[in-house]
Amino acid sequence: MPTTFLSNALRGTFFCIFGLWWSVRYPLKYLRRKANAESQPSNGVQRAEVFEGAVKAFFALAGILVEQFVPAGPHLQLYSPKTHSWTDLTPWRYTTMYLFFLLSGIVDVVSHSQLKLPLGLDRLSLAVALFIEGLLFCFHDYNDAALDHHVHSLLAVAVFAGALCALLEVFLRDHIILETLRTSSFLLQGSWLWQIGFVLSPPWGGPGWDQSDRSNLAFLTMCFCWHYAGALAVLAANSAASRCCNESCQLKLGDIDVELDCGMCIRKGKSGSGGALLPENGSDDK
Amino acid sequence: MPTTFLSNALRGTFFCIFGLWWSVRYPLKYLRRKANAESQPSNGVQRAEVFEGAVKAFFALAGILVEQFVPAGPHLQLYSPKTHSWTDLTPWRYTTMYLFFLLSGIVDVVSHSQLKLPLGLDRLSLAVALFIEGLLFCFHDYNDAALDHHVHSLLAVAVFAGALCALLEVFLRDHIILETLRTSSFLLQGSWLWQIGFVLSPPWGGPGWDQSDRSNLAFLTMCFCWHYAGALAVLAANSAASRCCNESCQLKLGDIDVELDCGMCIRKGKSGSGGALLPENGSDDK
Amino acid sequence: MPTTFLSNALRGTFFCIFGLWWSVRYPLKYLRRKANAESQPSNGVQRAEVFEGAVKAFFALAGILVEQFVPAGPHLQLYSPKTHSWTDLTPWRYTTMYLFFLLSGIVDVVSHSQLKLPLGLDRLSLAVALFIEGLLFCFHDYNDAALDHHVHSLLAVAVFAGALCALLEVFLRDHIILETLRTSSFLLQGSWLWQIGFVLSPPWGGPGWDQSDRSNLAFLTMCFCWHYAGALAVLAANSAASRCCNESCQLKLGDIDVELDCGMCIRKGKSGSGGALLPENGSDDK
Amino acid sequence: MPTTFLSNALRGTFFCIFGLWWSVRYPLKYLRRKANAESQPSNGVQRAEVFEGAVKAFFALAGILVEQFVPAGPHLQLYSPKTHSWTDLTPWRYTTMYLFFLLSGIVDVVSHSQLKLPLGLDRLSLAVALFIEGLLFCFHDYNDAALDHHVHSLLAVAVFAGALCALLEVFLRDHIILETLRTSSFLLQGSWLWQIGFVLSPPWGGPGWDQSDRSNLAFLTMCFCWHYAGALAVLAANSAASRCCNESCQLKLGDIDVELDCGMCIRKGKSGSGGALLPENGSDDK
Repeated sequence: MPTTFLSNALRGTFFCIFGLWWSVRYPLKYLRRKANAESQPSNGVQRAEVFEGAVKAFFALAGILVEQFVPAGPHLQLYSPKTHSWTDLTPWRYTTMYLFFLLSGIVDVVSHSQLKLPLGLDRLSLAVALFIEGLLFCFHDYNDAALDHHVHSLLAVAVFAGALCALLEVFLRDHIILETLRTSSFLLQGSWLWQIGFVLSPPWGGPGWDQSDRSNLAFLTMCFCWHYAGALAVLAANSAASRCCNESCQLKLGDIDVELDCGMCIRKGKSGSGGALLPENGSDDK
Repeated sequence: MPTTFLSNALRGTFFCIFGLWWSVRYPLKYLRRKANAESQPSNGVQRAEVFEGAVKAFFALAGILVEQFVPAGPHLQLYSPKTHSWTDLTPWRYTTMYLFFLLSGIVDVVSHSQLKLPLGLDRLSLAVALFIEGLLFCFHDYNDAALDHHVHSLLAVAVFAGALCALLEVFLRDHIILETLRTSSFLLQGSWLWQIGFVLSPPWGGPGWDQSDRSNLAFLTMCFCWHYAGALAVLAANSAASRCCNESCQLKLGDIDVELDCGMCIRKGKSGSGGALLPENGSDDK
Repeated sequence: MPTTFLSNALRGTFFCIFGLWWSVRYPLKYLRRKANAESQPSNGVQRAEVFEGAVKAFFALAGILVEQFVPAGPHLQLYSPKTHSWTDLTPWRYTTMYLFFLLSGIVDVVSHSQLKLPLGLDRLSLAVALFIEGLLFCFHDYNDAALDHHVHSLLAVAVFAGALCALLEVFLRDHIILETLRTSSFLLQGSWLWQIGFVLSPPWGGPGWDQSDRSNLAFLTMCFCWHYAGALAVLAANSAASRCCNESCQLKLGDIDVELDCGMCIRKGKSGSGGALLPENGSDDK
Repeated sequence: MPTTFLSNALRGTFFCIFGLWWSVRYPLKYLRRKANAESQPSNGVQRAEVFEGAVKAFFALAGILVEQFVPAGPHLQLYSPKTHSWTDLTPWRYTTMYLFFLLSGIVDVVSHSQLKLPLGLDRLSLAVALFIEGLLFCFHDYNDAALDHHVHSLLAVAVFAGALCALLEVFLRDHIILETLRTSSFLLQGSWLWQIGFVLSPPWGGPGWDQSDRSNLAFLTMCFCWHYAGALAVLAANSAASRCCNESCQLKLGDIDVELDCGMCIRKGKSGSGGALLPENGSDDK
């Protein structure tokens, strides 16, 4: 199996996992917010954001290390003194991308920790990471490989859509429509990266698709749309499932908090409402 | 009559019908909102949205079936094993477009039904359908047919304008200016699709216009503007007519609700104001 | 003097007049709004808008008639049966542009008349007129005349900036910064149209500038920036002058209303505040 | 050392200085605003803005004079009658750029002085200066020098990002995220100008990098991203440092005002709150 397919598939899996996780988390958050009508972010949400950031940073760091230190990698070497030219810059390009996702992960963790950074910095850092990714795909020189260029142009559409959503979320935080759109763009990006892998370097070996065949371009444009339709279907199914799950849980348990541990429902002894009552009773100095 | 003309005309008719329907509905909704100064969406509006969604989904589904199962269609076959190449992808392209309008119709119906989906999802799904349509027209390979490319570029302007409006409406719902702009973009798109039919495959047979004549391009650019002027004129006429109709109805009947059944005025026994009075009288606990 | 220069100069004068008028009107409106802190639009503002619309519509109509009925014009003829081809489409292009400014003028007049159209429709119609203008310049085929293309690309920058401002004003009405920006874009467009006239068809006859000389392009790009600097300077001078005038008037006269008649100060016998008191006293049914 | 390197380095230093200054000032302003929860701009902020404007105007004026009056400069001469052609237009291009920064500086000074100009004019003038800069880089003719074009395209990305931020700040003033983004875009622009100097005209003499080598383009795209990562790191370090400094100062001194003199802490005897009390007590005519 060629490494190019593998790396595209791993990247795609990363985006898919995030998309799937968000397709469960955001609907639940939305339902809870509507039920409670409290605008204050709960502890569960905070912890989820920190967890997400840590996972993102870990994946990004792992990606950087793999890109650099696989046997064929550049081992942090940028300029080859032997050939008096740059080494193969592809791993460096991905290293650069991952670096910004690593940054985004770190900002996520830090901004939801004790030191209160300005709200929206986490979304901004995600938007920056996606814009840099899109920039690197756009300014890449595809060497007249029309198909290669085409599939990456379509990828850039998905990337910039996600970046724009994240940027808007800086100003319109916790807007369920924007979160849905961002989730769908991540699912699309993830599944499209798999598709790119299959198109440019099939896992069963052999050359990729014919670069010069124009009907391949036409097919892939449509295929991109079908991927998006699929992403929306997965999103809808997950939202419906999390809604059903949420309702059945609430019937049984009363007051529930969505915790980090993958949707398991844990009774919290009405600590939320108790915590909300305490300050009002205890603070008579106002 | 060539099928290309017919399919363009049918598509155009679909968009024109929606544009015309909205050019009556939105002014009436605006006038009623101003008169009542109640921000709550009435049942009539809800039902109209569900009806629209159902019609949209029906048309889209019909379009998909026609594209696939006309005698010359691909019959759901994508790859021809005989020629070892893709089948003719044009019907598939339109199938993909219709698929997203089908999705938009379904979201319309579902989001205004009993299960309360987040507000704005219907507009988002319309925006997505239009963006996908524009994307498919933009990334299409026109094979150096300059005229073909030109008329579809102009179409894409109309499509993206509509998509942008629908996207803004996610955040600024029930904004009469945005609704007017969206209506005009639909009318423009509809009449321009008719024009494309006449230009590329005239209904009286024979070849389309000369692809290499530059003055054709110049004429069609202007023609596009005239179509928009026409769309605005139709919009203005319909708005004025619905305003007159609304005022004469109100003079006769008092309290009226715009119902689904195509503008027929039904007296509702002042249920609106009665319903508004009841809570104020009945709720003395405030 | 070639007609091309004359027509460019006339167009430029139209935009300059509007820019100059606004550079006096908007600062005065802003100062009065700040002084009164009343958000209701006064009668003076209404009348100014109606007057502007009428002037705009009159100029546009005159432009259409001139373009069509000058001796060399097409006299409403679009297709020449003699040569079996389109007539010269340039006058038609300008006719199309003026048509939308005519529309914008009519909407201005109607929307500030007795029948209350939705607020923002006047700005929308202006934005549409400018977008159509920009579209016609962008999609125009410049026939490999690099200089021609370049100066019209720069013009399109000014046009689209104005269109964007007008579109934003639909949502952010009476925002002094947007009004300033729109005014400056009109001044720029006007003076740049004069420049285009001098570059492409000098009034003293002879051919225009060398189309193939690259340093001409470089110079004109800079020149465009200087025009903008000049527009800003004129805007600043007019704002300062109207401010001084406003302050000296207020010292002498007390309560003043900016009237249509070109900045002349007319004492209105405190009708504004009197009119504001009356409803409060007279309407005891609230 | 070639003058091209020097001029790029000087320009870069200008932007870096502003970026560094803002990376200290904005976090401090944000912290003080959060601590005081008073929305009124303090005198310190006003004075800082005036100072910034004066420095900007001074640098811009110096830049104009240097560009024009160095021995090889055009000495305000635009057209060479000897060769019947334009003189070298490069110094004029930079003169034009600096002119708008000069304007922006003057607007800064004037708008925060006694005569109260509309709020947001300072941000608008900065946005205009950056847009003009980007326009001049975009419309410049790079004469098929691919590398030259590439590095300036990347520069334009940074410039337009900054312009967009400044434009948004017209409407969303004192938004810490926008200020952070603008600061980072200035740091990026500054350091990238240094990089351009090294690439196109190395300070140790000799020709610049190979214009035709495609791997140079690929490397520089990545390098641009690393510069941004560096800019973000500097920004984060400065923010953290100013936060620590702010906290330790507050512990010692109580009520502190950030003054112009480079972060020195001066006790102001609670003049702020005293000043806020006086008008309320003294003005009984309300």
